[in-house]
Amino acid sequence: MPLSPADDAFLSDLRARLPDDTIRRAEARHLEEPRGRWRGADAPLALPRSAKDVSEIVRLAAERRVALVPQGGGTGLVGGQIMQGGAPLIVSFDRMTAIRAVHPEEYVLTAEAGAVLADVQAAAQEADRLFPLSLASEGSARIGGLLSTNAGGVNVLRYGNARDLCLGLEAVLPSGEIWHGLRRLRKDNTGYDLKNLLIGAEGSLGFITAATLRLFPRPAVTGTALMAVPDPRAALDLYARARARLGEGVSAFELIGRTGFDFLAETLPEVRRPFDPAPAWTVLIDVGMAQGLDAQAALEALFAEAFDAGCVTDGLVAQSETQAHDFWEVRERIPEANRLIGAVSSHDISVPLGAIADFIPEGIARLKKIGDFRVNCFGHVGDGNLHYNVFPVPGRSRADHEGDRDAIKRCVHDLVHEMGGSVSAEHGVGRLKVDDLERYQDPAKLGTMRAIKAALDPGGIMNPGAVLRARD
Amino acid sequence: MPLSPADDAFLSDLRARLPDDTIRRAEARHLEEPRGRWRGADAPLALPRSAKDVSEIVRLAAERRVALVPQGGGTGLVGGQIMQGGAPLIVSFDRMTAIRAVHPEEYVLTAEAGAVLADVQAAAQEADRLFPLSLASEGSARIGGLLSTNAGGVNVLRYGNARDLCLGLEAVLPSGEIWHGLRRLRKDNTGYDLKNLLIGAEGSLGFITAATLRLFPRPAVTGTALMAVPDPRAALDLYARARARLGEGVSAFELIGRTGFDFLAETLPEVRRPFDPAPAWTVLIDVGMAQGLDAQAALEALFAEAFDAGCVTDGLVAQSETQAHDFWEVRERIPEANRLIGAVSSHDISVPLGAIADFIPEGIARLKKIGDFRVNCFGHVGDGNLHYNVFPVPGRSRADHEGDRDAIKRCVHDLVHEMGGSVSAEHGVGRLKVDDLERYQDPAKLGTMRAIKAALDPGGIMNPGAVLRARD
Repeated sequence: MPLSPADDAFLSDLRARLPDDTIRRAEARHLEEPRGRWRGADAPLALPRSAKDVSEIVRLAAERRVALVPQGGGTGLVGGQIMQGGAPLIVSFDRMTAIRAVHPEEYVLTAEAGAVLADVQAAAQEADRLFPLSLASEGSARIGGLLSTNAGGVNVLRYGNARDLCLGLEAVLPSGEIWHGLRRLRKDNTGYDLKNLLIGAEGSLGFITAATLRLFPRPAVTGTALMAVPDPRAALDLYARARARLGEGVSAFELIGRTGFDFLAETLPEVRRPFDPAPAWTVLIDVGMAQGLDAQAALEALFAEAFDAGCVTDGLVAQSETQAHDFWEVRERIPEANRLIGAVSSHDISVPLGAIADFIPEGIARLKKIGDFRVNCFGHVGDGNLHYNVFPVPGRSRADHEGDRDAIKRCVHDLVHEMGGSVSAEHGVGRLKVDDLERYQDPAKLGTMRAIKAALDPGGIMNPGAVLRARD
Repeated sequence: MPLSPADDAFLSDLRARLPDDTIRRAEARHLEEPRGRWRGADAPLALPRSAKDVSEIVRLAAERRVALVPQGGGTGLVGGQIMQGGAPLIVSFDRMTAIRAVHPEEYVLTAEAGAVLADVQAAAQEADRLFPLSLASEGSARIGGLLSTNAGGVNVLRYGNARDLCLGLEAVLPSGEIWHGLRRLRKDNTGYDLKNLLIGAEGSLGFITAATLRLFPRPAVTGTALMAVPDPRAALDLYARARARLGEGVSAFELIGRTGFDFLAETLPEVRRPFDPAPAWTVLIDVGMAQGLDAQAALEALFAEAFDAGCVTDGLVAQSETQAHDFWEVRERIPEANRLIGAVSSHDISVPLGAIADFIPEGIARLKKIGDFRVNCFGHVGDGNLHYNVFPVPGRSRADHEGDRDAIKRCVHDLVHEMGGSVSAEHGVGRLKVDDLERYQDPAKLGTMRAIKAALDPGGIMNPGAVLRARD
């Protein structure tokens, strides 16, 4: 049975059940996404103020079989927030931004789905606590979307993905029922893990309306360093040494290839380059340590040991907050430089840590068979997660390579799959990677996913086409 | 449609599909559980050697609608491993005990479902790594059961539940299909979280056959202390001070009430009592710290600060491994003392950390209205998880209180529920708490659980009656 459009009759019935001014038309920003691959058609937009409003919306949509597309900050990179065609109702969480409670003594915070990540971080900091989720789009990304996509970022190494930071959820299920699951418990073994099923389901099994989030002690002392390494294998050797010395004190361990520095020089010359010329590979390390330890001294000792072993060739330990910020600026602005250069194909992949050093050159070698490209390989190497993005050589544009895109993606993803990796490490499946999921996912798991979707959302109204192909 | 018995015809067809000597009769140990509440009838037993064997068993059972009951080490406390009646086939993982691989550089280990926890800990240690899951039954409990029940234990505070220690699974789904999900990835956002759905489902959605597990750096220095506190509120104050001083260095924070010491003196007088007379409340603290720190000094400084603030009245910092072992002996043997005394009703509950100090006396006050009892309240107070067990007063036996059991359980669980807590913090639901789940679980979540069970296991063959009531 096909879905029905969110037409005037539906909207009129919906208005009658909701507070005034809940239904509007979508603005341009609701119909675009950062990479410009998807564009939604003009659509109605719901701006609920509460889980109850969301429940009313979902209940009527389920009855009438109208497609619903949830939107948080709209920063997703895989098109999960944009449905092209099908006349859906967009459900925005822009009005549900409250931090409902902070429990510093419990290291817990409760936020609504529309709370912006930076605001949650600030609320935690105000209570002398750390909410460790941190990524480039933290000024716009919202909690509901971050959880629905199980967002990663730079602190996963130490604190885990978004999934690991969530203790409980309030969510509206595909029937319109509200699940009141905002528990503040570290241990709760009462039945199936619905929380983790909704996290990462990208709105296809229910809409998260609020979450209880884990907070952490703020590290007493922090330190940041950049170290030049000859190759990715040396970066992993350095990581092993860092873990052996500093244990869980390593908060971030990011890899930056020379191409990243080249792109910054080309497109954003105002960004300070700490090494000139740029080394083949650079590692950015953040540490957070307990009272009584000296982070700078620890990083300097790590450098000395690694230098003696030949796995680092140069290094800078930040001497101030400003310098630490400058180091991070390099890493954080690479995605912007990438956009200005224009990728032919971008890949958010992970492989087992032991396979990383082989993956990077093997990928480049295989891509050479398709054509001449520049690969900007950077990211969360400590997690085995790289952004492995393929660009035209200077003088050519992405438009020149339109016909190569599928072959490039296939080449990179096949290699990832051979190595036991994931073709979506932290960005999710959205609509971009539905085909990849069908190609690479274990058939037994894929069948189970489809059975769960059919059982919980029999009408197929919840973000149709995201994660799984929409049924007719 | 009712289930069919695992009769001779079924077993004969099954034998034809499996290697020799896979099907036997269950021994006594397969039909009992530690608290003696459930006892299975004589039943056939399958001893598969591989996921393929398990797959054959499940496939035929699904076709013939024969109930299957999985068994690991049989240490579960809620009857998840025993089906009374219904003529099931018991599936034991005693032969699937291999540690398939250790990847020290990746901090990952792959073990089969039947591997005993202590053996996994030892394999990690041999590679200079830590597998932090630790609980009293670690000498018998097996990985498959530990994951299926999302086991907790004493290190959850720092390292999380069993769920948090698992990167990937191999499992046989209710159709008999094998899910090959043994990934070694920290980040993998390719679809619904089937791993976490199977973890904690107690075999009712599939049988785990192997898992990739996370390892950690072994803390460079460790320390153990016992501190006497006047009341539970002071224990929580001490915990807050410990976290502020030591951050994530606190590995375990356990509460022991005076009743626990009384029970040890009464039943296991050989256990050394560190304080005599026993204080009203004692806290056992374990810390694990980075190179360059002094764990003993840190614990002594914590004691000095807390003593000055009036929240501890006495303390002992272990001066040797032996002494640390003695301190832990007190904590670890309390469950044995409890069994020797004989509880009327045992409760594995959690409440938000901020509610713990009110919960303990309020529970005692409410129980007084039912009768005179001794409450042994002990456990993982840092997680908000207490074992709140109710015993007869001296001179009376549990048999004298048979008629009080339901009222006691209801009294404790109602209070937990009022306080936003969980009636099963770490032991699971099994068959013991199916009623509680129906009473206290959010109806929207419970409905979703039932829909998932019906969709994935339409024949209802996977551990029927565990977690959810068996359908007719």
